[in-house]
Amino acid sequence: MPEIHRLDTRDADFATRLDALLAWESVADERVTATVKDVLDAVRTRGNAAVLEFTARFDRLELPDAAALEIPLERVRQAFADIPATQREALETAAARIRAYAEPQKIDSWRYTEADGTVLGQQISALDRVGLYVPGGKAAYPSSVLMNAVPAKVAGVGELIMVVPTPGGEVNELVLAAAAVAGVDRVFRIGGAQAVAALAYGTETIPAVDKIVGPGNIYVAAAKREVYGTVGIDMIAGPSEILVVCDGQTDPHWIAVDLFSQAEHDEDAQAILLCPDADYIERVAAAMDELLTEMPRAEIIRTSLRARGALIQVRDLDEAVDIANHIAPEHLELSVAEPEALAERIHHAGAMFLGRYTAEALGDYCAGPNHVLPTSRTARFASPLGVYDFQKRASIIQCSPEGARMLGATASVLARGEGLIAHARSAEYRSE
Amino acid sequence: MPEIHRLDTRDADFATRLDALLAWESVADERVTATVKDVLDAVRTRGNAAVLEFTARFDRLELPDAAALEIPLERVRQAFADIPATQREALETAAARIRAYAEPQKIDSWRYTEADGTVLGQQISALDRVGLYVPGGKAAYPSSVLMNAVPAKVAGVGELIMVVPTPGGEVNELVLAAAAVAGVDRVFRIGGAQAVAALAYGTETIPAVDKIVGPGNIYVAAAKREVYGTVGIDMIAGPSEILVVCDGQTDPHWIAVDLFSQAEHDEDAQAILLCPDADYIERVAAAMDELLTEMPRAEIIRTSLRARGALIQVRDLDEAVDIANHIAPEHLELSVAEPEALAERIHHAGAMFLGRYTAEALGDYCAGPNHVLPTSRTARFASPLGVYDFQKRASIIQCSPEGARMLGATASVLARGEGLIAHARSAEYRSE
Repeated sequence: MPEIHRLDTRDADFATRLDALLAWESVADERVTATVKDVLDAVRTRGNAAVLEFTARFDRLELPDAAALEIPLERVRQAFADIPATQREALETAAARIRAYAEPQKIDSWRYTEADGTVLGQQISALDRVGLYVPGGKAAYPSSVLMNAVPAKVAGVGELIMVVPTPGGEVNELVLAAAAVAGVDRVFRIGGAQAVAALAYGTETIPAVDKIVGPGNIYVAAAKREVYGTVGIDMIAGPSEILVVCDGQTDPHWIAVDLFSQAEHDEDAQAILLCPDADYIERVAAAMDELLTEMPRAEIIRTSLRARGALIQVRDLDEAVDIANHIAPEHLELSVAEPEALAERIHHAGAMFLGRYTAEALGDYCAGPNHVLPTSRTARFASPLGVYDFQKRASIIQCSPEGARMLGATASVLARGEGLIAHARSAEYRSE
Repeated sequence: MPEIHRLDTRDADFATRLDALLAWESVADERVTATVKDVLDAVRTRGNAAVLEFTARFDRLELPDAAALEIPLERVRQAFADIPATQREALETAAARIRAYAEPQKIDSWRYTEADGTVLGQQISALDRVGLYVPGGKAAYPSSVLMNAVPAKVAGVGELIMVVPTPGGEVNELVLAAAAVAGVDRVFRIGGAQAVAALAYGTETIPAVDKIVGPGNIYVAAAKREVYGTVGIDMIAGPSEILVVCDGQTDPHWIAVDLFSQAEHDEDAQAILLCPDADYIERVAAAMDELLTEMPRAEIIRTSLRARGALIQVRDLDEAVDIANHIAPEHLELSVAEPEALAERIHHAGAMFLGRYTAEALGDYCAGPNHVLPTSRTARFASPLGVYDFQKRASIIQCSPEGARMLGATASVLARGEGLIAHARSAEYRSE
């Protein structure tokens, strides 16, 4: 039976043990930060030359010149043409569904006019240019390309620039195919902190963007944190998490493999089950034991369950709701008879999967909602990636002469109360 | 005549000089960062005791015990009762207008049902608990309390906790009065990095919050940057900026004092005029000279204009639009005959003030839109503070058995393409 933490909410030390399991420090160590700062400085000051050097050093890829940094769009479209038809169709189905869900997320401009003719409003614009980081190697996920690129395109982003490292020259055809489906505008074969730097500052060849999104390793995360302010970033993601709340009536094999589906992401991933039925918990544990041998990534699953997984017996589903709100999980499966009633009481979760048929994995690929979600309890204040992350607002104020007089009187009192006389005079001029 | 940069877009070095003027490094130096880290660690591990020590050291305020950290609500309400009636009315007028503008910003939950019965949606929740940082001393702005607190309350935040230092015990009555008007729930007399730490981690007396908003000095900004991830933050604000685009037909005194109204904020503030009319630019310069002596903060204005201010002659208003989009200013005044046409072409600005009567200062206090705005070109990707900053989204997915079968087929293909077999099995179970 795979080793996994066993907790019971009736235990005196339950809260302490749970918080210990949830604790996660995303901060990069000082060595990583120092390396990243050096890379950022080098690219900022030396541009292409530095990018080429770091690509040779870190990605074992010697390129003849800066032009070779770009993967031409024809090559990207060729990748799509060359993959098997089932994969082409799956990518197109997923993209269409992600697009359909993204459409209602668009925010629109609005205005209203007051009695004295003053107009107030909010004007929406899409971002001009966005950079999409896509990891290379084993963690290269075409689904991630779709999830990041499609909402940007729905928002109306002017130019979407993808960077993806090709270590030793190895290209991931599915990733390129996904870029073609999503309508990515340009692709560069770079990665690591040097790619983040190139997108943030621009080089002679790679245009500077306004925001950088997409997952990456610890160097990429540290680089994004450093350039935040120069450009926008999506979020600093922690390891993936699933919390399953089950009433004990779902096939235990389904729940076992749902827990595996997060645990297989990486050794730090977190899979937790909350259930009021002690017997059912044992049946899930047995199913995990039975199914683990079928999993190619069994070692990763085993490690992550041992370190951060838990089967937790709760008093009842009401208590499960309270604990779920405390955990604020990235993914929350409500595998119960009446999931809607529970979902209404959940205040903190990235995405909720309601009912026995809604496997979390469907959300990872093609249900429609984004799989880029707040982790490490940040669902207390953060939202899934969406169209709104690629739009921004500007306030509109247009005062009529009468409105300026009326507002000027109030502004003058407050400005003088704050000792800001130029503010007061500026308001008063329009009132005289 | 106050010293100020003079630029002309026809000059060969115009772009370089403009970018040099705009450049702003918000990064705290290593000494500040080290101090802040020590303060954060101390409060995290020693709670109230550390907060009391730092308050004694940095704010010269010895408190008898941790209970004295809180300013009781009765005291807050008393401040409102005790200020002059004109100030009470001004605060209430401003709060009502900020509230009216915030209401249409609320985002609502939505769902849709697909043909096979699968339900997709987005569920909106307000944040549970928010911390509002308010600076003490000379930069204590009651308007800032309203601008941060009112949208949080409109969003439905459960508990709004304000921190404001009272150096040497000195309380700003207008700030407390504004807190009363805005409906702040609790107030603590703490500031600096120790206040940010107390809000982020919680102490025995001060509850941990989910997000921290509000302006502060370099230590507060550095502390917010450090705790970002543990809690949400609003933004790392740079110095205030105004860009005025004028056709040369507005009273030059109005424009002069509009420029002053940003310049008086602090020595790093930035005030820039774009105008196609060289004579008019001279008239504004003359008006600045005439009015400067009337300004109590003339020295700050003089320093900020000399360092970062500019009068820029442009070829025409079309060129002014392009430059405005490059600058992406916090505040943009369009002091021209037909401001709407220009505003439509502005993609990057925090707030736009249309027409000759719309002084930027009206927006600082009471027009309605928020005065917490993206600075330092971050309007390229960021928005004004709003109700949406105190709400968050959770995705909803509820698959029908048929929907699970259909989606499972697509998810299985993509999961196997990514080598994630637990994901594939989890999807396939529901399709069998």
